Amino acid sequence: MKNDQLFIIKVGGNIIDHTEKLSAFLNHFSSLPQKKILIHGGGKIASDIGDKLGIKSNYINGRRITDTETIDLVTMVYAGLINKKIVAKLQALNVNAIGLTGADGNCIPAIKRPIKDIDFGWVGDIQEGKINISQWKLFIENDLVPIVAPLTHDQKGHLLNTNADTVASAIAVALSKSYEVTLVYCFERKGVLDDIKNENSIIKNINRESFNQLQKENKVAEGILPKIENALSAIDAGVSKIIIGHSDDIIANVNGESKGTTIYK
Amino acid sequence: MKNDQLFIIKVGGNIIDHTEKLSAFLNHFSSLPQKKILIHGGGKIASDIGDKLGIKSNYINGRRITDTETIDLVTMVYAGLINKKIVAKLQALNVNAIGLTGADGNCIPAIKRPIKDIDFGWVGDIQEGKINISQWKLFIENDLVPIVAPLTHDQKGHLLNTNADTVASAIAVALSKSYEVTLVYCFERKGVLDDIKNENSIIKNINRESFNQLQKENKVAEGILPKIENALSAIDAGVSKIIIGHSDDIIANVNGESKGTTIYK
Repeated sequence: MKNDQLFIIKVGGNIIDHTEKLSAFLNHFSSLPQKKILIHGGGKIASDIGDKLGIKSNYINGRRITDTETIDLVTMVYAGLINKKIVAKLQALNVNAIGLTGADGNCIPAIKRPIKDIDFGWVGDIQEGKINISQWKLFIENDLVPIVAPLTHDQKGHLLNTNADTVASAIAVALSKSYEVTLVYCFERKGVLDDIKNENSIIKNINRESFNQLQKENKVAEGILPKIENALSAIDAGVSKIIIGHSDDIIANVNGESKGTTIYK
Repeated sequence: MKNDQLFIIKVGGNIIDHTEKLSAFLNHFSSLPQKKILIHGGGKIASDIGDKLGIKSNYINGRRITDTETIDLVTMVYAGLINKKIVAKLQALNVNAIGLTGADGNCIPAIKRPIKDIDFGWVGDIQEGKINISQWKLFIENDLVPIVAPLTHDQKGHLLNTNADTVASAIAVALSKSYEVTLVYCFERKGVLDDIKNENSIIKNINRESFNQLQKENKVAEGILPKIENALSAIDAGVSKIIIGHSDDIIANVNGESKGTTIYK
């Protein structure tokens, strides 16, 4: 039975990287009265610290290769520095935050991505059916607010770097069996734009049909395509609603007067 | 009512720093069938990474001064790198580990140490009466095994560096109201030694009376003094038993055939 609303909020690296933007976002987030989960991205800080430590960032086709040095780096930065600072700040805002990776409580089992053309290294593909729903519910039902770093584990002792958008949608889908889930992607634009040069040309609503039409008309910028595809799949799999919008607008967005883009069935 | 036994195990930096010793320790730890909590120290790795990042370690009277750069460093290394690697390894050993700092779930509130002669910086003094017993019990009663990094928080948004021995004894005292707590300090010696040059001269039992006698006879090495003082205070405050011993001996030590030093009332 789906009694309760659950908001799963993903905030990107662009917000994480700016102390003031992050602070404003956390204030908004803390004022949401409903059950909620926050998933945060990594931001540039991992690369900055990696540079100082002499760890090179390797990319193939725009995707980071996670070698042994890099998984240690992102474990430090994502699960340590970023995650625990957010937890401490939210605790000061009276949110009973708890920082998690997918290894903690075996919340998000994954498998190391199989090597095909590219060896991505210590990168995790989430096993959606294996997400530990009872563990998540234990936290949520006891008024803890999970703050999730984009790391999973292989159940063989290794942490795995995992795309934060994917972590967010996988948790949303798994928990949509128990809650009425709204998934909110917060970033620095107000929503999906009809005209990339016009910040006010927000496409208010997208479903599978209108998305196909937008693609035909070449109206969707390439960068946002996988996010929408991902969102539509999550809707198909049980998530009630997905909102893409500005990190300053989350209160309006979750209160039904969305200022961003809403993706629905 | 104290129904259940609870083992609170503290493992020091010397073990953490060596992959093989840590691995052996985690194997032993995983085979303890009782309810348990692990508190880990920091080890040299924070200083090594700090050196690479150009963060100087400042000490006054042998105690680390935790400036803003240093609290970020230890948050990364203790709560990120060390803590999450232990969690992932224990998950592979079928222990449902969950990594925590004192900020997570507001488990260990603390206050920033007041400045007297020395400004220790972002260092926390634990408010023992405020330890969040119900939060700890939620984890323990749901078969989660808390893995605790030596960090607390001030409830004002800041993480605080806190001595791992103190974290262990504070949790032990707080939870002794609900469990029959045995606190185990694991390190690289077999116990408290009568003769520091003779590894087999273990003092099997210490209580307040015999400790006073040992001190009079100058038989206790200075390094171990605060550990024993700390232990005796914890016993006075309700902890059932404290064992100081080698990290390879924890199974024997908790099974009542202690190979180390037992501190009792």
